[in-house]
Amino acid sequence: MARYGPMFGPDITFLGIDRCDMSDPASLRGAEIVVLGAPFDGGTSHRPGTRFGPSAMRGTDYKPHDGTRPHLALRTDALRDVDVRDAGDVECFSGDIETSIRRVEDAVHTVTAAGAVPVVLGGDHTIALPDVTGVARHYGFGRVSVLHFDAHADTGDIAFGALHGHGQPMRRLIESGAVRGDRFVQLGLRGYWPEPETLGWMARQEMRCYEMSEILDRGLNTCVREASALAMDDCDAVFLSIDVDVVDPGMAPGTGTPEPGGMTSRELLDTVRRVCVELPVAGVDVVEVAPPYDHADITALLGNRVVLEALSGIAARRQGGTWQPARPLLDGR
Amino acid sequence: MARYGPMFGPDITFLGIDRCDMSDPASLRGAEIVVLGAPFDGGTSHRPGTRFGPSAMRGTDYKPHDGTRPHLALRTDALRDVDVRDAGDVECFSGDIETSIRRVEDAVHTVTAAGAVPVVLGGDHTIALPDVTGVARHYGFGRVSVLHFDAHADTGDIAFGALHGHGQPMRRLIESGAVRGDRFVQLGLRGYWPEPETLGWMARQEMRCYEMSEILDRGLNTCVREASALAMDDCDAVFLSIDVDVVDPGMAPGTGTPEPGGMTSRELLDTVRRVCVELPVAGVDVVEVAPPYDHADITALLGNRVVLEALSGIAARRQGGTWQPARPLLDGR
Amino acid sequence: MARYGPMFGPDITFLGIDRCDMSDPASLRGAEIVVLGAPFDGGTSHRPGTRFGPSAMRGTDYKPHDGTRPHLALRTDALRDVDVRDAGDVECFSGDIETSIRRVEDAVHTVTAAGAVPVVLGGDHTIALPDVTGVARHYGFGRVSVLHFDAHADTGDIAFGALHGHGQPMRRLIESGAVRGDRFVQLGLRGYWPEPETLGWMARQEMRCYEMSEILDRGLNTCVREASALAMDDCDAVFLSIDVDVVDPGMAPGTGTPEPGGMTSRELLDTVRRVCVELPVAGVDVVEVAPPYDHADITALLGNRVVLEALSGIAARRQGGTWQPARPLLDGR
Amino acid sequence: MARYGPMFGPDITFLGIDRCDMSDPASLRGAEIVVLGAPFDGGTSHRPGTRFGPSAMRGTDYKPHDGTRPHLALRTDALRDVDVRDAGDVECFSGDIETSIRRVEDAVHTVTAAGAVPVVLGGDHTIALPDVTGVARHYGFGRVSVLHFDAHADTGDIAFGALHGHGQPMRRLIESGAVRGDRFVQLGLRGYWPEPETLGWMARQEMRCYEMSEILDRGLNTCVREASALAMDDCDAVFLSIDVDVVDPGMAPGTGTPEPGGMTSRELLDTVRRVCVELPVAGVDVVEVAPPYDHADITALLGNRVVLEALSGIAARRQGGTWQPARPLLDGR
Amino acid sequence: MARYGPMFGPDITFLGIDRCDMSDPASLRGAEIVVLGAPFDGGTSHRPGTRFGPSAMRGTDYKPHDGTRPHLALRTDALRDVDVRDAGDVECFSGDIETSIRRVEDAVHTVTAAGAVPVVLGGDHTIALPDVTGVARHYGFGRVSVLHFDAHADTGDIAFGALHGHGQPMRRLIESGAVRGDRFVQLGLRGYWPEPETLGWMARQEMRCYEMSEILDRGLNTCVREASALAMDDCDAVFLSIDVDVVDPGMAPGTGTPEPGGMTSRELLDTVRRVCVELPVAGVDVVEVAPPYDHADITALLGNRVVLEALSGIAARRQGGTWQPARPLLDGR
Amino acid sequence: MARYGPMFGPDITFLGIDRCDMSDPASLRGAEIVVLGAPFDGGTSHRPGTRFGPSAMRGTDYKPHDGTRPHLALRTDALRDVDVRDAGDVECFSGDIETSIRRVEDAVHTVTAAGAVPVVLGGDHTIALPDVTGVARHYGFGRVSVLHFDAHADTGDIAFGALHGHGQPMRRLIESGAVRGDRFVQLGLRGYWPEPETLGWMARQEMRCYEMSEILDRGLNTCVREASALAMDDCDAVFLSIDVDVVDPGMAPGTGTPEPGGMTSRELLDTVRRVCVELPVAGVDVVEVAPPYDHADITALLGNRVVLEALSGIAARRQGGTWQPARPLLDGR
Repeated sequence: MARYGPMFGPDITFLGIDRCDMSDPASLRGAEIVVLGAPFDGGTSHRPGTRFGPSAMRGTDYKPHDGTRPHLALRTDALRDVDVRDAGDVECFSGDIETSIRRVEDAVHTVTAAGAVPVVLGGDHTIALPDVTGVARHYGFGRVSVLHFDAHADTGDIAFGALHGHGQPMRRLIESGAVRGDRFVQLGLRGYWPEPETLGWMARQEMRCYEMSEILDRGLNTCVREASALAMDDCDAVFLSIDVDVVDPGMAPGTGTPEPGGMTSRELLDTVRRVCVELPVAGVDVVEVAPPYDHADITALLGNRVVLEALSGIAARRQGGTWQPARPLLDGR
Repeated sequence: MARYGPMFGPDITFLGIDRCDMSDPASLRGAEIVVLGAPFDGGTSHRPGTRFGPSAMRGTDYKPHDGTRPHLALRTDALRDVDVRDAGDVECFSGDIETSIRRVEDAVHTVTAAGAVPVVLGGDHTIALPDVTGVARHYGFGRVSVLHFDAHADTGDIAFGALHGHGQPMRRLIESGAVRGDRFVQLGLRGYWPEPETLGWMARQEMRCYEMSEILDRGLNTCVREASALAMDDCDAVFLSIDVDVVDPGMAPGTGTPEPGGMTSRELLDTVRRVCVELPVAGVDVVEVAPPYDHADITALLGNRVVLEALSGIAARRQGGTWQPARPLLDGR
Repeated sequence: MARYGPMFGPDITFLGIDRCDMSDPASLRGAEIVVLGAPFDGGTSHRPGTRFGPSAMRGTDYKPHDGTRPHLALRTDALRDVDVRDAGDVECFSGDIETSIRRVEDAVHTVTAAGAVPVVLGGDHTIALPDVTGVARHYGFGRVSVLHFDAHADTGDIAFGALHGHGQPMRRLIESGAVRGDRFVQLGLRGYWPEPETLGWMARQEMRCYEMSEILDRGLNTCVREASALAMDDCDAVFLSIDVDVVDPGMAPGTGTPEPGGMTSRELLDTVRRVCVELPVAGVDVVEVAPPYDHADITALLGNRVVLEALSGIAARRQGGTWQPARPLLDGR
Repeated sequence: MARYGPMFGPDITFLGIDRCDMSDPASLRGAEIVVLGAPFDGGTSHRPGTRFGPSAMRGTDYKPHDGTRPHLALRTDALRDVDVRDAGDVECFSGDIETSIRRVEDAVHTVTAAGAVPVVLGGDHTIALPDVTGVARHYGFGRVSVLHFDAHADTGDIAFGALHGHGQPMRRLIESGAVRGDRFVQLGLRGYWPEPETLGWMARQEMRCYEMSEILDRGLNTCVREASALAMDDCDAVFLSIDVDVVDPGMAPGTGTPEPGGMTSRELLDTVRRVCVELPVAGVDVVEVAPPYDHADITALLGNRVVLEALSGIAARRQGGTWQPARPLLDGR
Repeated sequence: MARYGPMFGPDITFLGIDRCDMSDPASLRGAEIVVLGAPFDGGTSHRPGTRFGPSAMRGTDYKPHDGTRPHLALRTDALRDVDVRDAGDVECFSGDIETSIRRVEDAVHTVTAAGAVPVVLGGDHTIALPDVTGVARHYGFGRVSVLHFDAHADTGDIAFGALHGHGQPMRRLIESGAVRGDRFVQLGLRGYWPEPETLGWMARQEMRCYEMSEILDRGLNTCVREASALAMDDCDAVFLSIDVDVVDPGMAPGTGTPEPGGMTSRELLDTVRRVCVELPVAGVDVVEVAPPYDHADITALLGNRVVLEALSGIAARRQGGTWQPARPLLDGR
Repeated sequence: MARYGPMFGPDITFLGIDRCDMSDPASLRGAEIVVLGAPFDGGTSHRPGTRFGPSAMRGTDYKPHDGTRPHLALRTDALRDVDVRDAGDVECFSGDIETSIRRVEDAVHTVTAAGAVPVVLGGDHTIALPDVTGVARHYGFGRVSVLHFDAHADTGDIAFGALHGHGQPMRRLIESGAVRGDRFVQLGLRGYWPEPETLGWMARQEMRCYEMSEILDRGLNTCVREASALAMDDCDAVFLSIDVDVVDPGMAPGTGTPEPGGMTSRELLDTVRRVCVELPVAGVDVVEVAPPYDHADITALLGNRVVLEALSGIAARRQGGTWQPARPLLDGR
């Protein structure tokens, strides 16, 4: 069988959904969303382990892996209401970053070209470069904006003597023209990186960055509304890139470069849901879940739920759903 | 000696309070609150371990186990100001769910009939069925409402071919008439369970369920005020059932079916305090603390504090206290 | 689909071997060995968690799950050289011990009757009763001896008011006549259980028990040779029941009732290999792997390797192999 | 070499800053801030381990230890923009509390007298007594107010038969006159300690204590503004004493006496930043980080970031910075 | 009530045995063995946490705490066959080493003078000084030999400027004359401490030290036989001091100064059993169990079993038992 | 400063020894042994994390980092008696295996050419290729034999499409001629890898491999004596490559591909000591210590002790010491 399946551990799919096979174009036909893993952690600057992120996010759940997940609030069952398939992992040798990036980009592009939304399970954030590029090759460079949830800007230039790594993808995306700097929006930044020179470069690209203090002071809902408007201004679609370290390490310890002072899990889940219901999402990645540093699988489970919120939001949008957070659960339904 | 004591580990009582003995009615006389353990985890659908919940909640505290706990904000010492005793554990063989449920119901009813408020330490949520039924047998079916804090509705029908388990107690309570469906209020629900059919059943029972998004959007205080009013409408008392997984797993990892996106510990503690000060509470259970998945005892400690908040709230109410969250700690006292 | 698959987590098989389906007799045809899980932990007297043992033992390995495992010393690839299939889990609701025992016994009997050797992944040791009984129903009561590796004799009478549980299966097996007391051999016992009365009962059954001090003093090889001779005296086959707690808890912490002072992992692996090469093994169970108490999966991995040693030993025996521990690895092969 | 360096582990400095040597006055000359460790945990009433706090807070960071940390929001690099040095650890034998307290006080006074702000890394909270006294000896008794973030009031009288310990420093400070009771402000208190008698003593000293419920109800910003005003009323400077247990144990498990229901990490970081930007801070201590109970270093990392926020706030204040939380990150800078 | 009970956590006794009260001499009358805790960890040079050793060793067991523990191999039930009581903890403030040592010595002497064998649960090894001195005050200085199991010689002179600490008790005991240097036997030493000067002092005292390499090469049984003979040459009794770090940290991680390359748990348990059966033991301490660094309680459980082996060996000796390791478990008994 | 220092964490040296700088040849002059780190984990086939191995092995010890470690049994202080320096880490970007290998080889060759013995701290086992090649470039290809302690043969051909990785270095070394196949000796192999084809290749190279069963049956001492003789037959020196996974994962869990059934820590330490005392060792590497999977630092500490045994053995040999395991510790010294 050509299908590679997960690189590490048993050959499972995301919560038991059907498989497809990147090497068999026919198996992609009709898919609306394709989940694929990028178990690469050779680009991390500190703690590795995200190579186990794809299998952890696919398999961590206390419910049966039966290919159904009815969303309580949205009243949609993404795994059934849209055609979601799992293409297994892109083969990523962590010791060879160049080859790995190339393979991921090709896989993402293939999925996009087949008419499906790619949902990529990382892996470290290195893969945002091929993830977004793969989508942009289809939509056209500059036509897809990025909503980027992260503690870090990931706009570094060179690290360890290399152009690529988990601290640099966003710069590479803007440099290549895949994404317009002024349509690159970041939420959740904090801490002590990058240094002023890089911040200067970011300002010159006209990026919009919401540091946590601004979010706390102005309110997350306000910032998200503003960010969404910016993302949809003269762009055709949005790529949603979610680094799990945007959540406070106290709530999501299983990650490689934890920065205290983040969002709560609740805030991230609600925001992902909202963005996917309200905006035309062309691709998603969820990255930096590092199981070796997790406890009781809480970060893996959060990653799984972030993916499910994205899938559910996309499904709800396709079914005409809207964002109504205050609606009582059992109200007239 | 007839007293069984805790099933697992040394024979301790909740923070060193006095003992009573379910097999010796005289030992219950005069008790206002009776703590009892239900170390049953045979009903869990996923991670077991709550059999160690009772001993963990009784014993996890950094202060001496001296039978005194002056509540800083409420200015009451529940362990001294009301007559609280610990009846040890009801013998629960996790391999036999029917017998265990029957024993817990009898014990809870005995306590209630003796004029005391039972505070049951779980155990998995299976025990809510005997806990509430035991109280309702005394007050009359339909006369006690339920305030239920949980990530899950626990209104499933059949699981693993069985009528009982930790996902079904609330349905059984409404079916039996022990509790009116329209006086069953749930706060903190989220995630991907139950499926639409069960939600339909819940709607038909006229249950009121506050999903986390509604709570976030409308404010916890608003929802609690509304829920409290509903619970006291044509009912004589309230049973408070608290599943520790209502708190975010990032803050309370030691539980069996963790669902990301919950309340903070602070929110739960404040809410329990408020409910117990403002409403006539006839029974309490605190369930689903699973020590094997805990870290540094933080979930066990949270369980202990939830129990203490309930005891302190009940004590404050009996002393005429009111809910004044903004009052400065040292203000004129 | 009739096949149940694992009760918890994704539907995987032991290291990727082919599936069979207990409800489809045709799928068993030709199988030489059938792996099946018994994810039951309702019978444990202390720490639960063995319900996750089957999936942990199936999936914990650093090599690809590709259905091949060439044994370095025995030069056999059990997963390829014999026909090994995985029947998934027997549905075991931990809250109902009677039903679970009945189901496991039927499944084991079906496998044996189909001509295959059942290899049962526990679960707690409660399942030794149905495991051995299921085999004995086929071979005839009294015709199968038991080699039992364990820290505990598991010959208790009643616990928690119940006849069944993980401390009583060996008594039930002898009482029912499934196994002759004088062909029941235990290795690795130690500690403070059972009490003299039960030891008296065991002596009257003429059981042979090797306590760890005897093993240390006389040598493990000597004891195993003696035990093997006894097991094959007027019996047709041997059932091998391995409680992972026979290994020292320092090396195998992930278990429910750890008793310090056990064997090393090396000693257990070599002994299992030897027994399976030298004796006609009619059934195997590997029990008491409790992942919640494990660290870095070392006990799960040990369980996986114990299973593989058994499979490899059985395969080597079928290929005419013999026990030659001193033979150099690359010697003339 | 006279320099002691860290008592435990390798001789490192806070994120690689330059060293100074308490025994060599010349090495302090010109320093604006001096970091020093007080690895003492003999005063804790429960879980020890804070002796490893100084090395954990110095060394836990995913970025290179290169003596530079540009603060994203404040746009200052405290490690470069002010003269910060690390004096290593004060020798603290945890078995001798009296000697340890004396040594810490002398060291802190030496630093203050040399014109630098001491930033003391604990250790348990016992050290607040010598920390604040050492500063007050320079500024004059009663001239320095205290802003104290903690779950506990630490105003006990005698514990374990001793005057000193981590539950008593604040009483000792007020008794000695080092700090005026009515300029001693506490934020974050909660739980079940101290008892009414001690609360009475605190009220008589006219201390101002913000319990968590008040903070939740009135808002953290409001309380901090009020507290800051009080602290600066007829005092010359503020000492900032931060017990990491003010944060919820769910987010900061690595501490000795965890009390559920605390602040989030985000709230603490923002508040420390604000206080240091807005008030003249004469000394800081960060205490009760207990690595043995930590997970994935999240509490150590939080401690490191609390120190960095304090250093950055002090640096920003010296550069004329102000508290503007809503300012966009890249706005005109 | 005068009885202090455990300093930390609930007031339990060793596996449920009866209590006695050091402040009530009558309660000691008739006791043959008295267990007492010394929860002191202020003397450790590295990782603290042994203050929780007494409660951990008293309470860690998977069997009921019912005051009975029939030893499988020795066929004695120490908790019933001899009069064993638990005196609770000696109050030890870890911040005051001098006072703590004095209190422990007085308690041990009181027990010994009452005719009972003290079994002291540490705490760090500092307490060997008062433990042995307390016994020697009764038997006469120089009349009691010491068998000392440890990775470290604990014969240092001054550490952290102090005479006392967990690295110095053995020197203090020889200096004071409480124990003759040539009747001080150490087994299990290894690693990189102490330095040659201290080794020279030890040689001059004519101590006999079995380093692990000698034990491995000559055999543990040979060394123990030799050591026992030496210990009984012109001495009236033996004090057995067991530092759990004599076992390899791989099997006993929960300790403060782990030194790789130690004994197995099996070897320690067998040796303790043998020594207590064969020699007149006048006192025992089991020290350096540090729960914060333990996993799944395996070190605490090992400590519990070491205590039980000592109690069982003493009981067996009083009943005329002998050391017969090769005797089959069920042989004629 | 040219010196890179450790890539991760603070700039420390092995237990506080002096530094040298690979970019400054003068700093190597006179060095007898040079420690250098190779924090590369991009070549691992499963769990990463060995990038933190160098800092963990340098810094994990409970004694002061003071550049002195007197070996108890050998009576040598390697850190003082020979000239040992620490060159920091070779810069290894885990995402680029080719560059990393080249840099490590150059560094090792530079050290060897300067007349010192390189002791390389891994990193995953990929680095054995540059480690041994760097030494062989100096001594001559085929003149250095290898003693390789490991659970795995590491003689694979291609993995993940790459020639290099932690499963292939030994094949590359023999293919290049750096080491003669018949002078490549492996001890500790076990498990289920490699497959027969690779074993055939190994046999054709005339490698000598001691599987654990042979070691158990014939005795470790016998095997080591035999292996040493082979290694010194027509070779000038020995390279000692130690994968910490040769020890049982129960005792050394912190590694990437743990294989149950290994040596004890004691056995490895004694063997390393003996080999370094008896043979002319030209280079050493200690690899596969993966801190993310460690518990209580026991594997890191074991790695540190393996390094110290090697240094001490080399030092003792230079001082004319011999291997006398039975000599009493204090005997005439």
